[in-house]
Amino acid sequence: MPKAEPPQAGAGEDLAAQTRRRIMDAAMEVFLRDGYVGAKTDEIASVAGASKQTIYKHFGRKEKLFEQIILDRLGGIDQLFQAALGELAITDDVETTLTAVARQFVHAITQPSHLRVRRLVIAEAGRFPELGRAYFEAGPERVHAALASSFEQLTHRGLLRIEDPVLAANHFTWLVVSIPVNKVMFCGEDVHFAPAELDHYADTAVRAFAAAYRAS
Amino acid sequence: MPKAEPPQAGAGEDLAAQTRRRIMDAAMEVFLRDGYVGAKTDEIASVAGASKQTIYKHFGRKEKLFEQIILDRLGGIDQLFQAALGELAITDDVETTLTAVARQFVHAITQPSHLRVRRLVIAEAGRFPELGRAYFEAGPERVHAALASSFEQLTHRGLLRIEDPVLAANHFTWLVVSIPVNKVMFCGEDVHFAPAELDHYADTAVRAFAAAYRAS
Repeated sequence: MPKAEPPQAGAGEDLAAQTRRRIMDAAMEVFLRDGYVGAKTDEIASVAGASKQTIYKHFGRKEKLFEQIILDRLGGIDQLFQAALGELAITDDVETTLTAVARQFVHAITQPSHLRVRRLVIAEAGRFPELGRAYFEAGPERVHAALASSFEQLTHRGLLRIEDPVLAANHFTWLVVSIPVNKVMFCGEDVHFAPAELDHYADTAVRAFAAAYRAS
Repeated sequence: MPKAEPPQAGAGEDLAAQTRRRIMDAAMEVFLRDGYVGAKTDEIASVAGASKQTIYKHFGRKEKLFEQIILDRLGGIDQLFQAALGELAITDDVETTLTAVARQFVHAITQPSHLRVRRLVIAEAGRFPELGRAYFEAGPERVHAALASSFEQLTHRGLLRIEDPVLAANHFTWLVVSIPVNKVMFCGEDVHFAPAELDHYADTAVRAFAAAYRAS
């Protein structure tokens, strides 16, 4: 939707945003095809139909470009948990709300594009731990911190009984996603899950989590 | 210890076993350094001080050599669970026995050599899903099948209450190992865990698992 701004500035912003998006899409394609080390800025520029100078201007070095792609991919998961926090803050039925959160989470994280990035980050994190840390901080760590604060509130409200909220947040997320995520990590991207199967992983994970951490 | 066999045959067997071991160690070094695609049999032969023919004779193609390395690395985990099954079959205190199993498991799986292989397999499983599947079948799937049969027995004995033993086995293992394993996958091999920290992950995982699945 057009923004209520002077047309000139608005158009300029849109163009810059479009250029960034085009470069990021091209970079993702080249990173996934050639690996982090093999991906050349020349090639990304060629696929994006942009100059190397434009890429440097928008993103700086290759490392920063890759980090931006990671942050972009994790943005959706982060939004999901921000919304979840709002719902958990007002729910009186934690198990039902957590089930809805878990279902959304497992569907989002098993998107092929998300899992391809995850594989690439893990592949490179031995040699380039700073890339993996960027993912870890913007992904799992951020999600766990947010969930932990929510679990703390729910404990204060008497709806959960949790001594170590960050640990419990880790138990929650890994119970929900470990089965499908690890299957894809090892068995490749041809593994697909029926929506009902993903829901089942979410539902049973929440049942186990609730048994471990419910207040009553 | 020397085996009670004719010296000639025993020495011959030992030599063959030594050659296999030397080739596997060399191959591991080259695979981890150059990646699966980059690793050349010539280079493995040179590091092992063996001929390419010897490598082919013992292992066949590069793919088979890599699979053998995976199976070799996972053998220790498998032995651990075979021993665990024996203990779980006779225990009357499931939680204590599971805690001992979980502690051994989390210490074994966070060995740097194990995690380096895990990273390499995940890195290549997108392009070579058959390598990842070999790991998945010999590792997680085998462990979960063994644990599941044990959980079934414990349910029959009235010590656990589990409807879906394979799912419960997955909940058990991922609760125990996900935190440290994922941290290393993303943050690189410089991440180290104090033994007490690993024990804590094991103990709290078993506490959550037992709350979800105990019979009483």
